[in-house]
Amino acid sequence: MNDVYKKSLNLHKKYGGKIEVVSKIPLGNKADLSLAYTPGVAEVSRVIGNDKELAYEYTLKKNTVAIISDGSAILGLGNLGAHAAIPVMEGKAALFKKFANVDAFPICVNTQNVEEIIALVKNISPVFGGINLEDISAPRCFEIEERLRKELSIPVMHDDQHGTATVVLAGLINSLKLRKTKKEDARIVLSGAGAAGTAITKLLTLYGFNHFIVCDSVGAIYKGRPDLNPEKQALAKITNKEKKKGTLSSVLHDADIFIGVSKPGVLTREMIRTMAKNPIIFALANPTPEIMPDEAIQAGAFIVATGRSDFPNQINNSLAFPGIFRGALDNRIKQFEQQMFIDAAIALAKYVKYPKPDQVLPGPFDLGVVKAIKKVIK
Amino acid sequence: MNDVYKKSLNLHKKYGGKIEVVSKIPLGNKADLSLAYTPGVAEVSRVIGNDKELAYEYTLKKNTVAIISDGSAILGLGNLGAHAAIPVMEGKAALFKKFANVDAFPICVNTQNVEEIIALVKNISPVFGGINLEDISAPRCFEIEERLRKELSIPVMHDDQHGTATVVLAGLINSLKLRKTKKEDARIVLSGAGAAGTAITKLLTLYGFNHFIVCDSVGAIYKGRPDLNPEKQALAKITNKEKKKGTLSSVLHDADIFIGVSKPGVLTREMIRTMAKNPIIFALANPTPEIMPDEAIQAGAFIVATGRSDFPNQINNSLAFPGIFRGALDNRIKQFEQQMFIDAAIALAKYVKYPKPDQVLPGPFDLGVVKAIKKVIK
Repeated sequence: MNDVYKKSLNLHKKYGGKIEVVSKIPLGNKADLSLAYTPGVAEVSRVIGNDKELAYEYTLKKNTVAIISDGSAILGLGNLGAHAAIPVMEGKAALFKKFANVDAFPICVNTQNVEEIIALVKNISPVFGGINLEDISAPRCFEIEERLRKELSIPVMHDDQHGTATVVLAGLINSLKLRKTKKEDARIVLSGAGAAGTAITKLLTLYGFNHFIVCDSVGAIYKGRPDLNPEKQALAKITNKEKKKGTLSSVLHDADIFIGVSKPGVLTREMIRTMAKNPIIFALANPTPEIMPDEAIQAGAFIVATGRSDFPNQINNSLAFPGIFRGALDNRIKQFEQQMFIDAAIALAKYVKYPKPDQVLPGPFDLGVVKAIKKVIK
Repeated sequence: MNDVYKKSLNLHKKYGGKIEVVSKIPLGNKADLSLAYTPGVAEVSRVIGNDKELAYEYTLKKNTVAIISDGSAILGLGNLGAHAAIPVMEGKAALFKKFANVDAFPICVNTQNVEEIIALVKNISPVFGGINLEDISAPRCFEIEERLRKELSIPVMHDDQHGTATVVLAGLINSLKLRKTKKEDARIVLSGAGAAGTAITKLLTLYGFNHFIVCDSVGAIYKGRPDLNPEKQALAKITNKEKKKGTLSSVLHDADIFIGVSKPGVLTREMIRTMAKNPIIFALANPTPEIMPDEAIQAGAFIVATGRSDFPNQINNSLAFPGIFRGALDNRIKQFEQQMFIDAAIALAKYVKYPKPDQVLPGPFDLGVVKAIKKVIK
């Protein structure tokens, strides 16, 4: 890993950042200038002044997404603040362009106050056709997203939640196909009740997984557990119908699927051996998974997925967000809905014609993925 | 003009806006991804988390400017709001890249509340190395700029003020050279006490013009005039030492220079004929000047400048702001100061080796201009 870190620092220093803002119109002479800028542009302003919807026709708005972060939950690093978030959001903007021809711009905000962030995003929204929230800590991210969804007329998505949930669902659909297990029968235990865990739980239960237990650092979440905050109470309502109590280790007995969005070391070989035969292990803690893939396989795992690009079955948000936003912009959707993420997951799963245990999802450079997903975001 | 307007609408529709955000790093395979994004980027975040100044080294910050507008004073069109400002700010971003290789991004804000704008700009500042305020109405623009200058650690400039003032001063320096008039002797009358007029007045008096009268729609501004707001009171302090009263027409008698940043029609041939011999006329109202150049010449004007690209002597902000921000970023200045704009004006004037009455300034496509100006912004 040290080598990757060193190379990455060098790359960032060499290029001085990763994105640039370029003109896509001719600017070679005075006549060009008079159309792109004054006096010609005055007419464009006048027309939009009369009907602001026309910003979609005459400006960058139709193809542009803001990537908003307050740096409170950067990757697995924690709360490092707005400046530290810049290289991540810039990288994401580069991927947006590369994979989906979406123009995305990083907005890293110097406040972690929920109301200030909501007001700020609303105030800068005129330029953008969509809002990608990123690396904002739970539970603040839930309120920010929910409020913006209601108060803005452009689609808003917290990618750490819904992008992750979409790719996880797609991976599971193909994994269960290979394992010949029906979603109604599959017993899932998820470790980690943060932003990603919450969104995965909501999407998977909505999709039709019935046997679903969420564990936080204390153990299984169940209705009536005395220490639950409102977000976890909401999870308790839609999961763990049998009200199982106990540690992750104890509720994992006989489970078919483990989904980890927590931290390294929470899953051991011994624990996997107590699961049902041929279990499916999605160990998504980043950069170090809950268990390393070779250990999981040794312990009997049938399929192992991680968040890493250097192992098979990478659960990578970049499989989902480019197509989701490409579709949102092209189809001018008013707001994202859970059903769209389910449809995107199904489309992504279906895109893999012949899934194999070490290839349940396409690679990140498969350009057909965006095409497959964008059609269903409508 | 109708033809330019129609062509401009068509251009904007055809391209769907004028700028795009592209990656400047290789993104061809998984290894590239692992450096530009996870896991490699984590190290860049960590490093910046420890010292946020390093954002200048590893991110877009070192080369990126925010163009901020609330759409309250768009070109000569007035208060059309944030959406109508987008095409203008986008055009400006295109020019920033074309002329100075600066990455600029339009931030058009849905609020016209001074405190909200100040808070917003401060909150989004981490990504940017400079702030260009644009098309914000007076007197709000004065407070917003002054507060941001004090409260931010990146350079902030309201271009309608200082960009315009810089180019006007450069144009005057060469005009007076041709007319063989010393700045100490030149009698200037300026019409229009808005953002541009205020900034021009401050810069020109600081530069050393002694005989300077500002007129608003009522007439000459003088110390003690009962109806002056604080901004105009400040102008009264530094101008009109003889406390001349009366209309523009009356104070214009025997003046050497007219500077108009007001509206069409305020200057007539008759008025020019009452000025000193061979007067200099800068009629900068946009898109229709205070008087048309051919009429001014007929009435005896020696040099006529306008804001228009289709007449000689265009007083065009794009001669100043690209070099000013290029210098600000390259030389990492802490804040803009008036003396820098004077230095920029002198450099711009000097850049024209042999000024002529119909060519007191370089054309907008002369790439040496940015080079000449950026050196003195330090």
